[in-house]
Amino acid sequence: MADRIRIGVIGAGRIGKRHARTVATLIPNAELAVLADVSDPAVRALAAELRLDRWTTNTDDVLGDPSIDAIVIASSTDSHAPLIQQAAAAGKHVFTEKPIALDLESTDAALAAVERAGILLQVGFQRRYDKGFRSAKERIASGEIGEVEIIHDAMRDPSPPPKAYVATCGGLYRDMVIHNFDNIRWLMGAEPVEVYAVATCAVDPMFAEFNDVDTSVVTVTFDNGRFAVIDNSRRSGFGYDVRTEVFGSKGALFIGYSRDTPVLKYDTAGVHSDHVHFFLERFDQAYVDELIDFAAAVADRRQPAITGADGRAAIALAYACEASVREHAPVKLARFAKGVSA
Amino acid sequence: MADRIRIGVIGAGRIGKRHARTVATLIPNAELAVLADVSDPAVRALAAELRLDRWTTNTDDVLGDPSIDAIVIASSTDSHAPLIQQAAAAGKHVFTEKPIALDLESTDAALAAVERAGILLQVGFQRRYDKGFRSAKERIASGEIGEVEIIHDAMRDPSPPPKAYVATCGGLYRDMVIHNFDNIRWLMGAEPVEVYAVATCAVDPMFAEFNDVDTSVVTVTFDNGRFAVIDNSRRSGFGYDVRTEVFGSKGALFIGYSRDTPVLKYDTAGVHSDHVHFFLERFDQAYVDELIDFAAAVADRRQPAITGADGRAAIALAYACEASVREHAPVKLARFAKGVSA
Amino acid sequence: MADRIRIGVIGAGRIGKRHARTVATLIPNAELAVLADVSDPAVRALAAELRLDRWTTNTDDVLGDPSIDAIVIASSTDSHAPLIQQAAAAGKHVFTEKPIALDLESTDAALAAVERAGILLQVGFQRRYDKGFRSAKERIASGEIGEVEIIHDAMRDPSPPPKAYVATCGGLYRDMVIHNFDNIRWLMGAEPVEVYAVATCAVDPMFAEFNDVDTSVVTVTFDNGRFAVIDNSRRSGFGYDVRTEVFGSKGALFIGYSRDTPVLKYDTAGVHSDHVHFFLERFDQAYVDELIDFAAAVADRRQPAITGADGRAAIALAYACEASVREHAPVKLARFAKGVSA
Amino acid sequence: MADRIRIGVIGAGRIGKRHARTVATLIPNAELAVLADVSDPAVRALAAELRLDRWTTNTDDVLGDPSIDAIVIASSTDSHAPLIQQAAAAGKHVFTEKPIALDLESTDAALAAVERAGILLQVGFQRRYDKGFRSAKERIASGEIGEVEIIHDAMRDPSPPPKAYVATCGGLYRDMVIHNFDNIRWLMGAEPVEVYAVATCAVDPMFAEFNDVDTSVVTVTFDNGRFAVIDNSRRSGFGYDVRTEVFGSKGALFIGYSRDTPVLKYDTAGVHSDHVHFFLERFDQAYVDELIDFAAAVADRRQPAITGADGRAAIALAYACEASVREHAPVKLARFAKGVSA
Repeated sequence: MADRIRIGVIGAGRIGKRHARTVATLIPNAELAVLADVSDPAVRALAAELRLDRWTTNTDDVLGDPSIDAIVIASSTDSHAPLIQQAAAAGKHVFTEKPIALDLESTDAALAAVERAGILLQVGFQRRYDKGFRSAKERIASGEIGEVEIIHDAMRDPSPPPKAYVATCGGLYRDMVIHNFDNIRWLMGAEPVEVYAVATCAVDPMFAEFNDVDTSVVTVTFDNGRFAVIDNSRRSGFGYDVRTEVFGSKGALFIGYSRDTPVLKYDTAGVHSDHVHFFLERFDQAYVDELIDFAAAVADRRQPAITGADGRAAIALAYACEASVREHAPVKLARFAKGVSA
Repeated sequence: MADRIRIGVIGAGRIGKRHARTVATLIPNAELAVLADVSDPAVRALAAELRLDRWTTNTDDVLGDPSIDAIVIASSTDSHAPLIQQAAAAGKHVFTEKPIALDLESTDAALAAVERAGILLQVGFQRRYDKGFRSAKERIASGEIGEVEIIHDAMRDPSPPPKAYVATCGGLYRDMVIHNFDNIRWLMGAEPVEVYAVATCAVDPMFAEFNDVDTSVVTVTFDNGRFAVIDNSRRSGFGYDVRTEVFGSKGALFIGYSRDTPVLKYDTAGVHSDHVHFFLERFDQAYVDELIDFAAAVADRRQPAITGADGRAAIALAYACEASVREHAPVKLARFAKGVSA
Repeated sequence: MADRIRIGVIGAGRIGKRHARTVATLIPNAELAVLADVSDPAVRALAAELRLDRWTTNTDDVLGDPSIDAIVIASSTDSHAPLIQQAAAAGKHVFTEKPIALDLESTDAALAAVERAGILLQVGFQRRYDKGFRSAKERIASGEIGEVEIIHDAMRDPSPPPKAYVATCGGLYRDMVIHNFDNIRWLMGAEPVEVYAVATCAVDPMFAEFNDVDTSVVTVTFDNGRFAVIDNSRRSGFGYDVRTEVFGSKGALFIGYSRDTPVLKYDTAGVHSDHVHFFLERFDQAYVDELIDFAAAVADRRQPAITGADGRAAIALAYACEASVREHAPVKLARFAKGVSA
Repeated sequence: MADRIRIGVIGAGRIGKRHARTVATLIPNAELAVLADVSDPAVRALAAELRLDRWTTNTDDVLGDPSIDAIVIASSTDSHAPLIQQAAAAGKHVFTEKPIALDLESTDAALAAVERAGILLQVGFQRRYDKGFRSAKERIASGEIGEVEIIHDAMRDPSPPPKAYVATCGGLYRDMVIHNFDNIRWLMGAEPVEVYAVATCAVDPMFAEFNDVDTSVVTVTFDNGRFAVIDNSRRSGFGYDVRTEVFGSKGALFIGYSRDTPVLKYDTAGVHSDHVHFFLERFDQAYVDELIDFAAAVADRRQPAITGADGRAAIALAYACEASVREHAPVKLARFAKGVSA
């Protein structure tokens, strides 16, 4: 079985655990070669659970091992770009959680290294692998709803993240709305040229302490003259709200559902169901499928479905929205193009 | 406007009010000529509300008036058959609330009078005029779901009727399940040949006092070898439960809905909607459409869509179910055919 | 019955017919006194249908009749303001279809006349009387979902109106989005201070001929710092799309439904239902309830629920959106305040 | 890791593959020790896929290996009872797919062996591990809907099985309805005392060739006087129909859903979704959770949640239904009690 792709997973936190388990058991042409995390107890525990006898707290052990073909980066956001640089230098392919980096400069530097080295890079916008979103994309592409005219993309977390997370996450647009940015580009099949964003702290004044916001509405104009509108909140008050409506000239597609358990309760107060809690439940299988596809791309030496350019485009949109809120005016994306000093 | 059909409405109770209002304002080719009710205050109040200057507490005033073309019977059940007899004698067409009578003998006598007089008689199984049931019937007839194989018909009231009602209503099968009996005959387009019924008092021991039941499951076998199953309760615990599933060789139709107000509430407990309360809300427009169609049938001198034979068939099914519960065995409908001494 | 409010209905077109029928039969404390329409055949036919023996092609007959208490204006948009002025002069109360006028100047002049005369004026934003929207408003007011943070209001017609309509309707914002403008003000319980609008012709280049658009996304900022987003299209490709989502600090309310007939079809291609066709079906009962409430307001000499100020606010929002599209910038509502020369 | 439960999986067909994969990767306290199947290519291929280096075509290799703690039986139905007997003799715990055997005699013999040997036996009624059914059971047990009065249990396959399957499956009641039998016993928390069944060949005359039926309605009376009704078909015409309605004195629970992909399509024909295809998709996670719970039961030496007695009760209900169809009469379960010669 020497032809299996040997993958090292870096990060043993919430999403790292998920990815490690997937690589260990669910990818036909890959195997989990090594686990790395800065925390010895965390990496040791996860290795034991996966019956893996090799783990490390030093990522150099992974990047320096010539038997490793690819790495999955699920460590803290600030480590993404440096690890991509190191992997490029070592000739290892990379699957990285979003975002590539919190700033465009580091993103561009990492992407330049990737290009020079000729390695494959996939960014973890898992939503593209969700059965619902995938089906919608295919049906749009097949012309089933005609030309797309307006996309409405909503995303709300059940409740705000802890203060420590807010402090380092890069703000609403780079941390959360980034998923919507990728989603609307992908579904529209066109490039944004301008955004207008309004935002506030409606959920918790804590966000203002970090110069951040918790509630936002963004209008996006694409190069084909069509629109998307994105609305977000750090707290839904009910569960994980992820719904996308795509309106075309011949009909519409509504993606998303809310029920978690397939049970309806009827009583004197009416009819009741529960609601899907959060992203790990909602995108359960998508987290598996993105890695299966990454491993297939590596095996085939083909470009992954979600490239570094996609990751950069999402960050540029975040920059533009932040500028729009600051300047209280529509902002062109061209200001944040590669090589432009904004 | 001498060509309008002049209708007298008998009964100013809950359903009588509804019918009087319909005749007064919503039937293009008919007019409300007179109102009758045994209660002077009731009939007076309703007449005032409808700006009608003719009302009576004596039904003879209605039946003896040669200018009246037709009557709508919405008075107490025991008055239905005698009024039909009188109307037949007077040559007036009749729309009657279900049932024609609580017993087969009176039903058969009334129907014989109708036939001799050549008047038109329509029975108020309003469900046949509901937009949903009507659409389903048309689609079944068009072959959209192929040959019908099983019908599942559920009906539950929100809460049990008052004791006085139970005392005189004729029991679960003649009062309530009678709607399902008509419904399954109509949707199947075939005649029942045998029933098997189990029943109990699960809701309230009060029903047992009147030798009645409140909970029932009936299996019906049709002359085409196919089946229906009917389940009923005098108390749903949540609202008015009226749902029918029709399974055919090429697909299925599910008729019914539960939401009353078009609002969904999302909160930490999940997703919530309300539930339709009871039959006047659920079948709102059907109560209008049945009378519009009756007036049209009278104008055209054509047989109404729901005939005396339909009314009799439903009562015969009630008899068969009662026998099945009593005898703890399947019972053939032939035992209750016209002219057979059961 | 001298105490019934005597109402004259002006306009025998689609919505005029509906209102005339309501006044004639469904309002307990009102009666239809006279019908007026510029078209003799139209008004004659409707009068016959309603068994009304008084009609006219001259509105002066209505406004000059001292026995008439109130009028319902359902004639062409350009006649609304002049009729309101005349009714004010004659001391008659007015229910008018939206909008009061297509321009702010005529609107302000009409409202000044209303104020001087002390008559009551209700504007026909029927959505406020819809069972779903009404329930949502009550639940918001009761604090059920906490503080409202974002409202998403969508509205799409099934297919574009005819060219003749587009030529005189006043454009997307004054003709169509005006309903959303009223809706978000009402549900938010706050006043808009700024809008940002993007719009295009995605449906039909015909709209551009009239300097109009068919597709729009509007972001609204309220004086409480919260947001609404409105998206519209002149063609949904599927039916009448009217849905509103209200997100609050403790949960959310989703208003709207799509199924017309209560039937689900299951076949090898999946599960299918139909879709509500257009506004007369969707807001059926709301068109009745708004007139019942108007007649009650007249009887009680109380301010109607939807005032001239509400009608003006909606038109001002339309002006602001048009300016925003033209100027490609956010626009403050203060520019269109009463007495401000924009 | 010597304390992991070592499991041998017997059967490499559709369900065997699923179970083998689960044991290999998804049960924390178990490991896949060996695979067995009568087909060498099948067992070899599955072993390769799971990176397992031990497989056999001889079940004696599994049952004779003292290092094996438990077996999972997913081979052909006629092999279930003999394998249970052998496992009992060898002191190995058993998880077996339903049914234990197609006849009561073999079932009773197998259960006697299990009891003598003191091994643990779990029967694969996976529905009990479905998130929806599990939640419903818990809520019923907690009294959330009061006393259960009627259960309606529907089950339809998307299309009939191949002839070869029909020939050996034991007929509709022992092969398919057996799932419903277990389900209603479990949800009602009471024992059936009588059944009445009607059945026919509506789908395909092929079933009659094997003295089998394809369409059935069963009424069940429980020892608490309450009812269940089960309706089945070998062909839904649309997908996998598995829905259960539980009506209680304080409300109802509806279990089941139909949508597979979370996308709604809106077009001129209405609103459309897809439908879940078949049991492997519908009960995906339940097939994992039942084995996790089995392994936990083995580890804890506690009785599994679904016992041999449950498996026997389901087969006895099948016998009673067959007798009811044959005898055209209600049939008491007591006729098929253990030790009774029916």
